[in-house]
Amino acid sequence: MTSSADDPSSALALALGETADAVVAYLDDAITGNSPRSARLAAAMRHAALAGGKRLRPFLLVESAALFGVPRAAALPAAAALECVHCYSLVHDDLPAMDDDDLRRGQPTVHRAFDDATAILAGDALLTLAFDILAREDAAADPAIRIALVAGLARAAGGAGMVGGQMLDLAAEGRFENGARSPLAAPEIERLQAMKTGALLDFACAAGAILGSADAERRQCLARYSHALGRAFQIADDLLDVEGDAGTVGKRVGKDAAAGKATLIDSLGIDGARLELERLVGEAEAALSVFGSAATLLAEAARFVANRRN
Amino acid sequence: MTSSADDPSSALALALGETADAVVAYLDDAITGNSPRSARLAAAMRHAALAGGKRLRPFLLVESAALFGVPRAAALPAAAALECVHCYSLVHDDLPAMDDDDLRRGQPTVHRAFDDATAILAGDALLTLAFDILAREDAAADPAIRIALVAGLARAAGGAGMVGGQMLDLAAEGRFENGARSPLAAPEIERLQAMKTGALLDFACAAGAILGSADAERRQCLARYSHALGRAFQIADDLLDVEGDAGTVGKRVGKDAAAGKATLIDSLGIDGARLELERLVGEAEAALSVFGSAATLLAEAARFVANRRN
Repeated sequence: MTSSADDPSSALALALGETADAVVAYLDDAITGNSPRSARLAAAMRHAALAGGKRLRPFLLVESAALFGVPRAAALPAAAALECVHCYSLVHDDLPAMDDDDLRRGQPTVHRAFDDATAILAGDALLTLAFDILAREDAAADPAIRIALVAGLARAAGGAGMVGGQMLDLAAEGRFENGARSPLAAPEIERLQAMKTGALLDFACAAGAILGSADAERRQCLARYSHALGRAFQIADDLLDVEGDAGTVGKRVGKDAAAGKATLIDSLGIDGARLELERLVGEAEAALSVFGSAATLLAEAARFVANRRN
Repeated sequence: MTSSADDPSSALALALGETADAVVAYLDDAITGNSPRSARLAAAMRHAALAGGKRLRPFLLVESAALFGVPRAAALPAAAALECVHCYSLVHDDLPAMDDDDLRRGQPTVHRAFDDATAILAGDALLTLAFDILAREDAAADPAIRIALVAGLARAAGGAGMVGGQMLDLAAEGRFENGARSPLAAPEIERLQAMKTGALLDFACAAGAILGSADAERRQCLARYSHALGRAFQIADDLLDVEGDAGTVGKRVGKDAAAGKATLIDSLGIDGARLELERLVGEAEAALSVFGSAATLLAEAARFVANRRN
């Protein structure tokens, strides 16, 4: 399996880069306006939100919206809001009280570059900024569309989504009660991952459909696509944790084994995981067929996610 | 100075209690729906959001809305959302990396009753739940009103409001850089406090005006009221920290002096602070005059805030 994103001049690599640049510029402005009085808070938010990252979620949002004729500029506020939520979650997850990570995207984590209190507050401010951005008129002229975006993002990020998944993940590591690990079966792992990482990826595509006022059939096709992509994303992540090296991956590897955490690799095996990845890429492509050639970049993104090296 | 809230059968005490009960019931339901899969997350959210507390912010919101004929039930979702934000901020502020408090509302803080990771995630989930609630149709039938509430709450809670104020507060305690304290002058203290605690109190009254589609004049009157009330709230808080005892106040006292933190008591003196409180209560009452007798409870609330013992 090779991916067109290995070639930096590919259409996918160019589109990823353009959206990433636009999101960074948007967030840079938004943070300046958000924290006018505390230079330290603004610096920590910038450290968390502007450095590195593929900006996969904004890309999925922008490209999903494009399927319905929404120009990138019109989808950018929602894409930036989504990225705020992703970045806040990384800042909090990296804290000593959580995963205790020193390295993120090849840089010191926010609490290492600043301190724990600043990292907690910078995360809080980024989460809040996401909803601030979605409430602005440039996120969508129609208030009903903006409120649908708020509803979707809050659902995806909250206790039934990302935060709930992170909580289940910590519990599975045996972090609570008597410290006993409770190894999960494959269906439980999938449910946990669907909450922890899948919910925001699902929202990326759902938000594109909301911005584009998509009909029910096309919403469902995009949802099938994002489910397959989300599962591929997580299996690729688990493979990287087993096979990758920290220099390439940009964060600590071997964490799952060190934490005694069950992943799908345990039940699938490495070769089985690669086969499952290939199957999921096919599933993602099939879900996009209704959109024809307009969805070429999204299809390539699924293959890229499955084959990524960092 | 005495306050009608000292009498538990007063109209103010009854109205505070009724709104508090209604908010607790609403939040109880909302948390159940929010964290269907992690009992530990839901328990920590309940611990943070359901136990004790005067529910002053929801009360101000409900009573401000009532000035424009909005029934309590219709203002309740927004009031509950605001309380979510207040409660999340207490959970994060109490963390060892922040103020390191063991006691809150006479109960163990969330990280003491559970652990730091759970407290971080429960705070994150409550902040997210606030926007989830505001996005629901029962928060307001008109999406434009809901999105105005989202915008106002995000502004009040973010880097230019509550979180920014907390950051400035930590900096003033000398928590960063070389650890040197930078004692603030009175105008800087007031600005910090206007961000840290004033912004959410302002939003409480502004939200009532939003729900009631108030005209510009009445919005401004309510804003003058909430500014005066917010300043009175903070001076009363500073007085309690100097004069109160932990058993009555329900949290640790003497914190400001221990942290070497400048407060307005330093510049006003205790007697001067009491005079300023009385002046602010008068200012709050004057701002409400346009509403006539409909604003009696809000006027009493300002006196209650100025005279509170916990």
